[in-house]
Amino acid sequence: MIKTELGTLRRSHYSNELNPSMDGLEVTIMGWVLTIRGHGNISFATIRDKNGDIPIVAKKGDCPDELREKLSILKAHSSIAITGRIKSSEKAPTGFEIIPSELRVFSDVEKIPPFEPLAKTVKNIDTRLEVRPIDLRRKTLQHIFNARSQVLKSIRDYFYQQNFIEINTPKMIATATEGGAALFPIFYYNKEAFLAQSPQLYKEQLIMSFEKVFEIAPIFRAEPSRTNRHLAEAISVDLEEAFVDYNDVMNRIEDIIKIAIVTVSDYAKNNSDVEFIIPSKPEHIPRYSYDELIEKMQKAGAKTEWGDDLYPSNLKKIGVEGFYFIKDWPLGPKPFYVKDSKTNPKISESFDLMFGDLELSSGSTRIEKRHELEERMKNKGMKTDAFEYHLGAFDYGVPPHAGCGIGLERLIMALTGTENIRDVTFYPRDVDRLTP
Amino acid sequence: MIKTELGTLRRSHYSNELNPSMDGLEVTIMGWVLTIRGHGNISFATIRDKNGDIPIVAKKGDCPDELREKLSILKAHSSIAITGRIKSSEKAPTGFEIIPSELRVFSDVEKIPPFEPLAKTVKNIDTRLEVRPIDLRRKTLQHIFNARSQVLKSIRDYFYQQNFIEINTPKMIATATEGGAALFPIFYYNKEAFLAQSPQLYKEQLIMSFEKVFEIAPIFRAEPSRTNRHLAEAISVDLEEAFVDYNDVMNRIEDIIKIAIVTVSDYAKNNSDVEFIIPSKPEHIPRYSYDELIEKMQKAGAKTEWGDDLYPSNLKKIGVEGFYFIKDWPLGPKPFYVKDSKTNPKISESFDLMFGDLELSSGSTRIEKRHELEERMKNKGMKTDAFEYHLGAFDYGVPPHAGCGIGLERLIMALTGTENIRDVTFYPRDVDRLTP
Repeated sequence: MIKTELGTLRRSHYSNELNPSMDGLEVTIMGWVLTIRGHGNISFATIRDKNGDIPIVAKKGDCPDELREKLSILKAHSSIAITGRIKSSEKAPTGFEIIPSELRVFSDVEKIPPFEPLAKTVKNIDTRLEVRPIDLRRKTLQHIFNARSQVLKSIRDYFYQQNFIEINTPKMIATATEGGAALFPIFYYNKEAFLAQSPQLYKEQLIMSFEKVFEIAPIFRAEPSRTNRHLAEAISVDLEEAFVDYNDVMNRIEDIIKIAIVTVSDYAKNNSDVEFIIPSKPEHIPRYSYDELIEKMQKAGAKTEWGDDLYPSNLKKIGVEGFYFIKDWPLGPKPFYVKDSKTNPKISESFDLMFGDLELSSGSTRIEKRHELEERMKNKGMKTDAFEYHLGAFDYGVPPHAGCGIGLERLIMALTGTENIRDVTFYPRDVDRLTP
Repeated sequence: MIKTELGTLRRSHYSNELNPSMDGLEVTIMGWVLTIRGHGNISFATIRDKNGDIPIVAKKGDCPDELREKLSILKAHSSIAITGRIKSSEKAPTGFEIIPSELRVFSDVEKIPPFEPLAKTVKNIDTRLEVRPIDLRRKTLQHIFNARSQVLKSIRDYFYQQNFIEINTPKMIATATEGGAALFPIFYYNKEAFLAQSPQLYKEQLIMSFEKVFEIAPIFRAEPSRTNRHLAEAISVDLEEAFVDYNDVMNRIEDIIKIAIVTVSDYAKNNSDVEFIIPSKPEHIPRYSYDELIEKMQKAGAKTEWGDDLYPSNLKKIGVEGFYFIKDWPLGPKPFYVKDSKTNPKISESFDLMFGDLELSSGSTRIEKRHELEERMKNKGMKTDAFEYHLGAFDYGVPPHAGCGIGLERLIMALTGTENIRDVTFYPRDVDRLTP
């Protein structure tokens, strides 16, 4: 009888811990069946674990018949353990194979998956998302998410080295941060509430006491868009800092981008089959003013005026590419908390970080004085009463401060050359998709 | 004129970077006013930044009159910058004071806060929560949240060292994980959806491809309880691992608890005014079986039977304290994904990590075979159709796996000796509180 329970059996080695010099050693490996080929009295299998692949050769006479027979009829993706001896072999690409003496089949697969585990690309992303857990077994995605995890680690390491404190702000909130659009309403016990679109107001409050704060957490936006760069639920890397302005925040972002590029490059170096398109590390990320770009666009023949948004088609016309900042945006459309320039009241101390025409981050100097905040809110037709829980903090000495939010998924798209935001998101959420 | 804008002025030193040997050096410090005492021609101020306190002495003749006059009327909490010279002074507790030459007042305070910034305790927690941003300026809370941030860092470092990958699972989901109670409903575009009570099903799916995963993220439970240990929104430290069982997960938790205790102890060593009650590091966390504890309780005269919950009053009777596990709970009340014991079908391969009578974590071996899952769901009266997005994964080789969730806030309570969960939460959410 082939056993089907784990019991006290444990893996002795991961795939990457095995090599031909271990010839004769008994090992226990675990993973899932990548391929099976049977030729009567001999079966070849490749077992994949999270670190790589292991070749198994079950030959009549070398291993129990029952084992060989069961192995030969296993379908791809079955979850198994094999105990056996390592045999160095010049024929095997790894230089060794495993001669099995025991097999356990934890989960037998009956269904044929809608695509091959070795498929590099699968045309229809919805087909893949429907079976996301096995889609994620494909190497392409394995590499993206492993690199993503490393990028998160190195960004947090940067924050800790720079003496930022990690915060967690509430995701269930009473009022909209930016004024009301694109919110998901919740039933909060017997009250109406909303999912937070950003930790904006809370992180601003927290710099009063902690000065340098960061949060990496989900944000929720009821985006009606069906594009390759929008999600209803995304991870935002937020930072906020007291006693600095937007220039200092751009410096921080520059640091973070450089660190993230090094992290992804190192990951690619250590994994030979990675096919990322990694941007080269910029010496310095250029900072164009909005005015400057509008002027360039006009000179390049674009029909655009001061106050217009900077459209991708016009950005292409003037040939800006790679990472760059657009700073000093017109104040008008900016949220109420964004500070105006002290030299020109029509513009704001704000910036976007771009990668080509993809916006990765938005930041600004914030207003620290209550009366200025209230004036801005009134001009925007916002009810200051509803924000008293926030404005109240400004009665007690809020310092000058600035900050930004970086869209993690878009950053990973830029770092790996991934075109669809869904491919850098474990379980994407959008207007059409709430499962799996 | 006293300036009120930051402009290009930047802090030259934090409080902890100043010392008497810097006598004569011009420095720029920034922070908020902790205390002000004026005696006609001389004013003493203490400015606090995130790292500590700085004494300022403004004496007629030593500094501009306008500066001295403005400083003397500032109220506590005002946000300011001072440029001045360090003067070593034997009278000052720090061994130096700063003689100011320039003052900027970024945010003038008009209101008197409902409690003193130096107050160690404030009776009414609701009073504090209403002005949370300034409540968090109190040292007691500063220490708790700084230590919390360090604990998060060391837990993540552990996961990375152990080759776990960081995941993010969706917080907006189509169905309830555990069967329907205590959910927050959302309007998801034109559909009904819910906020995730735990990343349970997603993290189980993800071990198919990544084997060892962790997530530290908010969970949402519409708890009707008004207690000192329940929140509607909390941070859960989740881990899930393939090819292991609940014993291995208890080992992981033991590692994490030890690391967290060391982290908090180190924090306390480096900050002399910390008043945490830190538990001593256990050599080994005891693992009591449910059966064993019921028997002990009965022997101690408690009226309890097999199948009952283990009530705090009964736990006290048998004198279990500190950190301990209760394992092998009756299967009946456990969620559908919890594995039954192969030696006794009435009990489950599950555990709770306790600290005294506070439950910190819950974990188990999970079921990896679809037919067993379906059977358990049917026995619980659950509709398997609604979970097809999850059950579908089990058609493709889910390995044996186990995992747990640790309540971060409760862990911090245990590590610091904090009695109210609201004091270890930046902005607590409960049945009565949705703001600030």
